[in-house]
Amino acid sequence: MNPDICRERENATFNTETLTNMLDGSAEKTRRRREIESLVINDPDFQHDDPNFMSRSERYDAAVKKSSQMIMKLRDYGISDPEEIYFYKRCVHRGFSEPLDLHLGMFLTTLLNQASPTQLDTFFTPAWNLEIVGTYAQTELGHGTHIRKLETTATYDPSTQEFVLNCPTVSSIKWWPGGLGKTSNHAIVLAQLYTLGKCHGLHAFIVPIRCMKTHQPLPGVTVGDIGPKFGFEEVDNGYLKLENVRIPRENMLMKYAQVEPDGSYLKPPSDKLTYGTMVFIRAMIVGESARALSKSCTIAIRYSAVRHQSELRPGEPEPQILDYQAQQYKLFPLLAAAYAFTFVGQYMSDTYHRITGHINQGDFSQLPELHALAAGLKAFTTWTANAGIEVCRMACGGHGYLCCSGLPDIYVTFTPTCTYEGENTVMMLQTARFLVKCYRQAREGQQLSGTVSYLNEQQRLQPQPVSSRPTVVNINDLASLVEAYKLRAAKLVEVAAKSLQGELQRSISQEDAWNNSSIELVRASDAHCHYVVVELFAAKLSEISDTAVHSVLNTLALLYALHGITLNSGDFLQAGLLSVPQLSQITQRIKALLVEIRPNAVALVDSFDYNDEMLNSVLGRYDGNVYESMFEWAKRSPLNRTEVHESYYKYMKPLRSKL
Amino acid sequence: MNPDICRERENATFNTETLTNMLDGSAEKTRRRREIESLVINDPDFQHDDPNFMSRSERYDAAVKKSSQMIMKLRDYGISDPEEIYFYKRCVHRGFSEPLDLHLGMFLTTLLNQASPTQLDTFFTPAWNLEIVGTYAQTELGHGTHIRKLETTATYDPSTQEFVLNCPTVSSIKWWPGGLGKTSNHAIVLAQLYTLGKCHGLHAFIVPIRCMKTHQPLPGVTVGDIGPKFGFEEVDNGYLKLENVRIPRENMLMKYAQVEPDGSYLKPPSDKLTYGTMVFIRAMIVGESARALSKSCTIAIRYSAVRHQSELRPGEPEPQILDYQAQQYKLFPLLAAAYAFTFVGQYMSDTYHRITGHINQGDFSQLPELHALAAGLKAFTTWTANAGIEVCRMACGGHGYLCCSGLPDIYVTFTPTCTYEGENTVMMLQTARFLVKCYRQAREGQQLSGTVSYLNEQQRLQPQPVSSRPTVVNINDLASLVEAYKLRAAKLVEVAAKSLQGELQRSISQEDAWNNSSIELVRASDAHCHYVVVELFAAKLSEISDTAVHSVLNTLALLYALHGITLNSGDFLQAGLLSVPQLSQITQRIKALLVEIRPNAVALVDSFDYNDEMLNSVLGRYDGNVYESMFEWAKRSPLNRTEVHESYYKYMKPLRSKL
Repeated sequence: MNPDICRERENATFNTETLTNMLDGSAEKTRRRREIESLVINDPDFQHDDPNFMSRSERYDAAVKKSSQMIMKLRDYGISDPEEIYFYKRCVHRGFSEPLDLHLGMFLTTLLNQASPTQLDTFFTPAWNLEIVGTYAQTELGHGTHIRKLETTATYDPSTQEFVLNCPTVSSIKWWPGGLGKTSNHAIVLAQLYTLGKCHGLHAFIVPIRCMKTHQPLPGVTVGDIGPKFGFEEVDNGYLKLENVRIPRENMLMKYAQVEPDGSYLKPPSDKLTYGTMVFIRAMIVGESARALSKSCTIAIRYSAVRHQSELRPGEPEPQILDYQAQQYKLFPLLAAAYAFTFVGQYMSDTYHRITGHINQGDFSQLPELHALAAGLKAFTTWTANAGIEVCRMACGGHGYLCCSGLPDIYVTFTPTCTYEGENTVMMLQTARFLVKCYRQAREGQQLSGTVSYLNEQQRLQPQPVSSRPTVVNINDLASLVEAYKLRAAKLVEVAAKSLQGELQRSISQEDAWNNSSIELVRASDAHCHYVVVELFAAKLSEISDTAVHSVLNTLALLYALHGITLNSGDFLQAGLLSVPQLSQITQRIKALLVEIRPNAVALVDSFDYNDEMLNSVLGRYDGNVYESMFEWAKRSPLNRTEVHESYYKYMKPLRSKL
Repeated sequence: MNPDICRERENATFNTETLTNMLDGSAEKTRRRREIESLVINDPDFQHDDPNFMSRSERYDAAVKKSSQMIMKLRDYGISDPEEIYFYKRCVHRGFSEPLDLHLGMFLTTLLNQASPTQLDTFFTPAWNLEIVGTYAQTELGHGTHIRKLETTATYDPSTQEFVLNCPTVSSIKWWPGGLGKTSNHAIVLAQLYTLGKCHGLHAFIVPIRCMKTHQPLPGVTVGDIGPKFGFEEVDNGYLKLENVRIPRENMLMKYAQVEPDGSYLKPPSDKLTYGTMVFIRAMIVGESARALSKSCTIAIRYSAVRHQSELRPGEPEPQILDYQAQQYKLFPLLAAAYAFTFVGQYMSDTYHRITGHINQGDFSQLPELHALAAGLKAFTTWTANAGIEVCRMACGGHGYLCCSGLPDIYVTFTPTCTYEGENTVMMLQTARFLVKCYRQAREGQQLSGTVSYLNEQQRLQPQPVSSRPTVVNINDLASLVEAYKLRAAKLVEVAAKSLQGELQRSISQEDAWNNSSIELVRASDAHCHYVVVELFAAKLSEISDTAVHSVLNTLALLYALHGITLNSGDFLQAGLLSVPQLSQITQRIKALLVEIRPNAVALVDSFDYNDEMLNSVLGRYDGNVYESMFEWAKRSPLNRTEVHESYYKYMKPLRSKL
């Protein structure tokens, strides 16, 4: 064990295990999570070499192997709780996505949600037993965000009682679905339904794409891998071109909409239930932001505790780089954000489950707010985490660029969250649409509740000009900072709403007014989400009974809030929420907070409790022995399998005689 | 040719060729660059499949092959002008780094600069003819930034007139040098020189590491590849461990410092000449920032012109995504930055050559300013470009994640510039050291010149309190915006200097005061660099005679300046340079500028004149035929070499029977 990192742990002012238990939910949950993780870590079937040493085909192969074993073992162990399956799966694949993700996460769940009872009988058991391996084919080359314009068609032929599926253009080729390229033999295909000469919009169809015996593509099916990507090397994201592929009428998912044998069409009663899955996935991504950022912080902070460089004081030994203010200023706000997002992720998960309960009782009233919150927070947290991972990587200097640091893999695995399940700017605009609607309702005298209730107050504050409003912020008081974030959000929602109004007064259409206000609308959503995050962080503190843990998290919460103000100081000054002298005070206060956090930094990342196998980083090792491990890792690099690379004989040696 | 992109080109208000010539320097220079590029593009020896389809070993192999051929062809063609070699090389390797980079860029140049005439006779010709292939081994596992603490030793043994080289610890293993792992047979090794029992600090030694006949590592030498990295797959960055490796006395580079046969040491007369190379490389990196960003903008803007998605107005066809304000707001400020950095890069290159002339005449007076400017601008432009590449990638939606978009490669190839040749935060602090020194000189009444002359004015403004100063900005006038950036820089340099002073008054050491002011110091450097960039962009406009080109670049310069103000609005408000109502006006003005730029966006990226082979992006194709090309590319993916992947037979098929 590296002595520096030992000393860090000795100097911490709180008990890491207490905080870990809090993050897991309870001591028992921590125990069980570790138990599940150790099942994987101690399982010889899941030992593997670094995927970074393999070709893409080898990585795909290894992932299929692990997924197959995982499915058998989960059944053998009798692990069936969704959270426990998640722990196990995450540990097996070390955080990477895998070829069966869409089969398990989308194909099976879509069957459960949208198949009729008869269809469930036909398809579910074979799918559960992996005779049918499926994916969910929605996105096309030409359409991702705007799915209403998908071009693939399913035309009903009453004479044979079949649907005929076609991708009529290049842009209508299905593109991106995970597991589609090589793994799946079925796909749930989203297509425009035509029957009796009329289009009824998008519906879902179960389409066999490969032979169940030979796994060869079926007639009319062109299917393959879409090629190498930024990360996701284990996943065979695929393309699918359908040409006159016929499927039985019974292969349209018919729990809601139906096509009868004669071709007549029955509309679905409501689409609100499918809407829930989308919200759920976005809410979960908030938790992924927390995980990606907390992993990155664990690596960068542990490494900064054992790396010594340059000199602070002449003649003294080189300090730990964690002692540099510039390094603390990079990492500690991200550490604070990692905690903030962890709590926001927990809140989103809890809220989703609470509201789902209401929905099952027919009460949809809280769904719009949750939908808006999930969209905005998905964008807000993924953008922050995405940039934060790279800050952590660069805070490790050159060594952060090595794959063995773990940071390049974290980045490429995480960055797609900014785009999939709703492109972030589109998400911010969706949230803005909700905020502007609420703003208008409040102006019309409606009483709003939930996270947007501040828009009620906004109306009360309205008559008072900003400049005469007293400065509200006490920079040492978290509640006061929450209030400032709230008023900033209120102000920016108002600015966005007024921009829309102004554009409309120039007598342009609603749509153009919306487009011409995008800058203000995105800013409003961002401010709203920022407020919600600060608010939830502050709220979490009230639940913490352990005084040592409370104290250190309170410091982090203050840092998170004050750092966010300095990054957006123009907004706070503009809204009259801060005075110019206060801005300098905030910088001083932030410096004091960095000093307060410094002795607890390593303990704070230890509390996330990533074991070395999960973290898979030589820089983030728990024991701090980074250089030895890096050297051992490098020696195993494929280029070192021979002392002399074949290119020497082929090119370099012959070249000499020619020059 | 895609009709959308044709229309864009027809609607441009200026002639792209005129702007291209301006960027190249002249019409003749454009012609010659294209001529050199076409030599490569039409050369069958340089045709190759997408490197993303190859394993790392294959990529390394292909790069060695191309480098070997390149060296022969350059001699055959008689291309010897450094700029023309650069064009040719860049085109051969499509912007990727390659195994011989350090041989060509560091080994040969270090010989030229630091070898004695006798040493040049011995080593240069074999190195020129690639019998000796060398690298430059400075960084160690434990030390990158603080090279004074490198641990490798070279101890002189007078009895044999040899140096004995050792890497005494794990942390002293040489780590990172390009071409060291497999390619080089020599290395210039930086080591602590010991002679007659005394350490004389770092010196450079020519160390043979592999046998000239067999290419096997020599006795005492452990050498290999440091393993996969984030990008740079063509380069065999290496490790080198030396154990009692003996080299003749003549292998120490002795142009300046010398060790005589009896072991007595002669000091070098000055170290300022080696200092110049470092400044040169940093100045060149500014140009690389411009290239990376202009390539990324070319891809994202052309794709945004052909991609249609969602609806702006109900019932109308889906608009080009370039028509969304949110998309313009992401891309056009980056386009403006790409132009700004291009001009800054040209300025840095010109200035370097001008000052080198002075230095050769013994005048070092301008070197400190150039050194500070190169450090700061290297950090400022690489950080902006680094983040900007990712914004461009995400602006392409899902398809930006595919390697065929070209964007992942641009990112991983570029991002190391934030760390190598001086870690960016360290660079910012170096610039700050110069700025604070100048600030103090100005306070003491010295008259400063060059980019820091505004610190003279600062002293004149001093007595006047900020709040009573008239608001200076005219947001429609570039000269006024330059002035505002200048005053912001002056203000932030003052804040940093006062922070240092305040810390010192709390009677802490100079070094602690410096560390405790890092946040303010980095901000000051950032503001200084931002001012210089805006200033140079404005200055460039005065050189442009073509009115159409002038007009469109003026619009870009305004956008660059105003967008930078909104990102840092707190600073401008705090310094009293802007009023609150002006901030809203700036947002309106930015929107108007986006509208102005919109019809010229494609022509502005066309003017960078990247041919399709260099850009290597299906999304950025000149003809706009993106979907067809993407599909063709995907079909060539290695995973598609067989219809059924072997993992099906190995794992998936057997699994079914077990479940």
